[in-house]
Amino acid sequence: MLLKRTHTCGELNGSHVGEQVTLNGWVNIRRDLGGVIFIDLRDRYGLTQVVFSPQDDEAAHLAADELRNEFVIGVSGKVQQRDPENINPKMKTGEIEVRVHALHIYSRAKTPPFEIKDDIQTNEETRLKYRYLDLRRAPLQQNLMLRSEVYRSTRNYFCENNFAEVETPVLMRSTPEGARDYLVPSRVNPGKFYALPQSPQIYKQTLMISGMDRYFQIVKCFRDEDLRADRQPEFTQIDVEMSFVDEESIYSMAEGLMARMLKDAMGKDISTPFPRMSYQHAIETYGSDKPDTRFDLTFRDLSEIVKDSEFRVFSKTVAEGGKVVGFVAPGYGSLGRGIMDRLTKRVQQEIGAGGLIYIKNNPNELYSSVSKFVSEETTRNMAEAAGAAEGDLVLILAGKAPLVYQQLGDLRLMFAKEYGLIDEQQTNFLWVTDFPLFEYSEEDGRYYAMHHPFTSPNPEDVPLMETEPGKVRARAYDLVLNGSEIGGGSIRIHDFETQQKMFRMLGIEDEEAREKFGFLLEAFQYGAPPHGGIAFGLDRIVMLLAGAKSLRDVIAFPKNQRAQSTMDNCPDSVETRQLDELYIQLKPILK
Amino acid sequence: MLLKRTHTCGELNGSHVGEQVTLNGWVNIRRDLGGVIFIDLRDRYGLTQVVFSPQDDEAAHLAADELRNEFVIGVSGKVQQRDPENINPKMKTGEIEVRVHALHIYSRAKTPPFEIKDDIQTNEETRLKYRYLDLRRAPLQQNLMLRSEVYRSTRNYFCENNFAEVETPVLMRSTPEGARDYLVPSRVNPGKFYALPQSPQIYKQTLMISGMDRYFQIVKCFRDEDLRADRQPEFTQIDVEMSFVDEESIYSMAEGLMARMLKDAMGKDISTPFPRMSYQHAIETYGSDKPDTRFDLTFRDLSEIVKDSEFRVFSKTVAEGGKVVGFVAPGYGSLGRGIMDRLTKRVQQEIGAGGLIYIKNNPNELYSSVSKFVSEETTRNMAEAAGAAEGDLVLILAGKAPLVYQQLGDLRLMFAKEYGLIDEQQTNFLWVTDFPLFEYSEEDGRYYAMHHPFTSPNPEDVPLMETEPGKVRARAYDLVLNGSEIGGGSIRIHDFETQQKMFRMLGIEDEEAREKFGFLLEAFQYGAPPHGGIAFGLDRIVMLLAGAKSLRDVIAFPKNQRAQSTMDNCPDSVETRQLDELYIQLKPILK
Repeated sequence: MLLKRTHTCGELNGSHVGEQVTLNGWVNIRRDLGGVIFIDLRDRYGLTQVVFSPQDDEAAHLAADELRNEFVIGVSGKVQQRDPENINPKMKTGEIEVRVHALHIYSRAKTPPFEIKDDIQTNEETRLKYRYLDLRRAPLQQNLMLRSEVYRSTRNYFCENNFAEVETPVLMRSTPEGARDYLVPSRVNPGKFYALPQSPQIYKQTLMISGMDRYFQIVKCFRDEDLRADRQPEFTQIDVEMSFVDEESIYSMAEGLMARMLKDAMGKDISTPFPRMSYQHAIETYGSDKPDTRFDLTFRDLSEIVKDSEFRVFSKTVAEGGKVVGFVAPGYGSLGRGIMDRLTKRVQQEIGAGGLIYIKNNPNELYSSVSKFVSEETTRNMAEAAGAAEGDLVLILAGKAPLVYQQLGDLRLMFAKEYGLIDEQQTNFLWVTDFPLFEYSEEDGRYYAMHHPFTSPNPEDVPLMETEPGKVRARAYDLVLNGSEIGGGSIRIHDFETQQKMFRMLGIEDEEAREKFGFLLEAFQYGAPPHGGIAFGLDRIVMLLAGAKSLRDVIAFPKNQRAQSTMDNCPDSVETRQLDELYIQLKPILK
Repeated sequence: MLLKRTHTCGELNGSHVGEQVTLNGWVNIRRDLGGVIFIDLRDRYGLTQVVFSPQDDEAAHLAADELRNEFVIGVSGKVQQRDPENINPKMKTGEIEVRVHALHIYSRAKTPPFEIKDDIQTNEETRLKYRYLDLRRAPLQQNLMLRSEVYRSTRNYFCENNFAEVETPVLMRSTPEGARDYLVPSRVNPGKFYALPQSPQIYKQTLMISGMDRYFQIVKCFRDEDLRADRQPEFTQIDVEMSFVDEESIYSMAEGLMARMLKDAMGKDISTPFPRMSYQHAIETYGSDKPDTRFDLTFRDLSEIVKDSEFRVFSKTVAEGGKVVGFVAPGYGSLGRGIMDRLTKRVQQEIGAGGLIYIKNNPNELYSSVSKFVSEETTRNMAEAAGAAEGDLVLILAGKAPLVYQQLGDLRLMFAKEYGLIDEQQTNFLWVTDFPLFEYSEEDGRYYAMHHPFTSPNPEDVPLMETEPGKVRARAYDLVLNGSEIGGGSIRIHDFETQQKMFRMLGIEDEEAREKFGFLLEAFQYGAPPHGGIAFGLDRIVMLLAGAKSLRDVIAFPKNQRAQSTMDNCPDSVETRQLDELYIQLKPILK
């Protein structure tokens, strides 16, 4: 039997008083007052107080006696204005209540392992096992609704701008560059395997070569990596590619998308275009390729000033090509010795720097933590070069570049968090540009593509490709929001010769390139347009917009850090018959 | 260098005459006329004639000499009205041409393995290998654009109706019911496997239990089945689930979706609600659970009339519980003996029936193909009972039910196609309802769920579940368009006891059920709403709307019938190192 609802639990207000209505939902809270049963009935849309009184309907009141939290019921009744003293202005439906004359119980409920309320302390393991209960909580439902709105906004934006949404294959070829692939054995092709896409990169470039002109897709991608707190084996990308474009076309497309998304999903207006910063500037000024620009604390290079210092830590570092860099913490000159000692310890333990040097530029005292070794004059010069005003603190690290930048960047974040310098209301977008094309791995003694092997070099730097690969800039860009990378892309190579040169630079020999990427190389010979694109991390964007602490809070059914779903016990063993059909077996030790 | 386009190749018309424009695209056709080079420049949006004349620009004309088909170029020039005799009314841009004064060649092209034109005879193998070239052809691009519009229309419809779009996992648990799973070995959990979803069934039901109320998703699903012409290993579903609903809610939601989709994607108005037909009626009247109602040729049961016939084929069939059924082909009484002999042979060879019996009800002759055995009176009675008018042909089969219905259904389709009785302009939607809950497998000696084990029985038939399972009707429904199933769903079981009974009926023992579906059974005990849903086959819908002959023509990168993508040589062998990491190995014979 179905008592078909006439309204949701978030809908009724004073204008409905006197109407006969039917509601469906979950018993959220039950109270008994003087022989009358009050229930807050809950659905995705809100809560409504429904009342079972023997005066209204004796049978319904009797039946309601059985109701407990999380029972699923249908009720029919009359909307009634609440007494003035009972009006709840915090509740959308707080003006009214429904006096029930018919009740149907759809489903009874055992006592859940944790209470369904906004704020719970239950450990995440239990919440993931009973995900269907956790998802009843309003904060998670709101996250999923926000996510749904982000999909919608994204798609509307792209459709209105003439992009074609195209689905690319999930069963694709394994190309062991980049991260580790998830493999799928083929039954029809014994001994062969598909891979799940780490990105639809190859396909979207193929679509450009086929003339699809403007492509987008919201698409699942997969990486079999060891999971950190903020990683999932499967993640969702907003994937975009455009033909006949340069960087400017991509920037303005992406800025339009972000503006639209924040407007639709958050009602927030943001200003475009976004500021831009070169990779090199980002590293040397913020110690990060994804600077959080919601606060200042930017770096100054003090190396020139201290290169001849009697203090060996300074002079040796500079002599060996390292850097002495610092930033000003305005007004923190008064921090006491105990605090500074603890900060120094954290810098050593959490950031891994050798030590922290600091100067307090106080009205009556220029204090330096290395005053034993550094002259007052040099200290004064350093404070001045760092831009310290009276009362300011200067924090300084010395070491090899680029490591010292990264460490000072970590310190910058640590300090800002510790002292609440981050304005959480800001929405700071930033383009980081001019990434290096290659990064050198000391361990492997070879260059790797910093983005991927299809990224176009900056034409000005092409002559350096064979002589000074480390100096070649890529036509690559990242989009950063409040210090998190939320997107990255590049203008791609679209000609055979450059692509082949790139593969060779990466130690991918001609034959290997032909085998792995042969069709793309061949495709370049049948007329390829200049093209470029970007991919946005949808999970992270939603997490940032929702103010959530974990990706798991914006994914309906996430995996835990062992890549398991404990709710449905996945992954699990399978029958030998299934493996036989796939022509594989477990390695003997595991049988 | 980028000559940034000001317009697409489908945009310019008389109103642009005199403007300086820049176009980008592919050389579609090149003609030389009296020292002037004419190029049709192509992009996704259309074709524009661009002209290189030494009078306009000598350098550009000289550079254009090199251009061949499929070169990718940018041109700048002036829009000029064509001479009246050169206006091409079939071309969107046929009024104008662009007189070029600057040319940039982005990419040269070898001669492609087949010509890029609408209608080609090239075999599909070659087209799939060079998919990036095949996708340059307008019919395929139009299919992909139609598909993109279907996505858009679908999503707008659901969002406007308060549905939440939720992504469900691709890496899930293997549940060896139904079709064969694609498996994915887990590296982090040695010896264990994920499966790719055959459908997000379990997750969408979980979302209902979690109170998400209305869910939709356009989602990839996977089945490792032997591929028929119209199957793909991965396919796309429009997946929907709703809480607190009955069949009527699903029907009207689906009808609204279809109306919206046909309006948005095809500009077509259709009328709702759709007609409905019970499974039993569909089988007995059309010989199919997905009747094509664009033409009549409906069946009449002649068993009663012939049960006492001296003709053993009739009387024995009926005595043994079989059926004698036929349909009238109006006006085909004049088909000659040769034609009828060929039809009989096809019925035997292609449909597998023992033989075809027919009656020609012609003005001066009542002819029966079995007149030797059947009296004229019986023949006349049969013709009458079949509803034959003068000049009509009656086609009759006798045999076991339900096989004979299916065979006559195949004959019905064969005849309609042969004689062009199908009105291709019609868009006939139909609900098929009241499917059996179970079907019996003679081979396995057990019942299987006709839809899936989560389908709710019709409450009226629950008492029959243990006594006459074959008679239990399910609360299941299919949506049929022009004789193709495009969607199917059901009202689900939402209580523990019924679900457990269902598992037992299917021979899934308690322990097995607990292991495979345990969390769902448990979830039912924490308050589950009545719910139901449907899944639509998006690939097939787009194929039908596009009038395409194959699913491969509406999928950007399809697999061939060996589940391979020849373009990128997938699936392929992988490195032993990769298998080692996954704790699997090939079976020895394949090493």
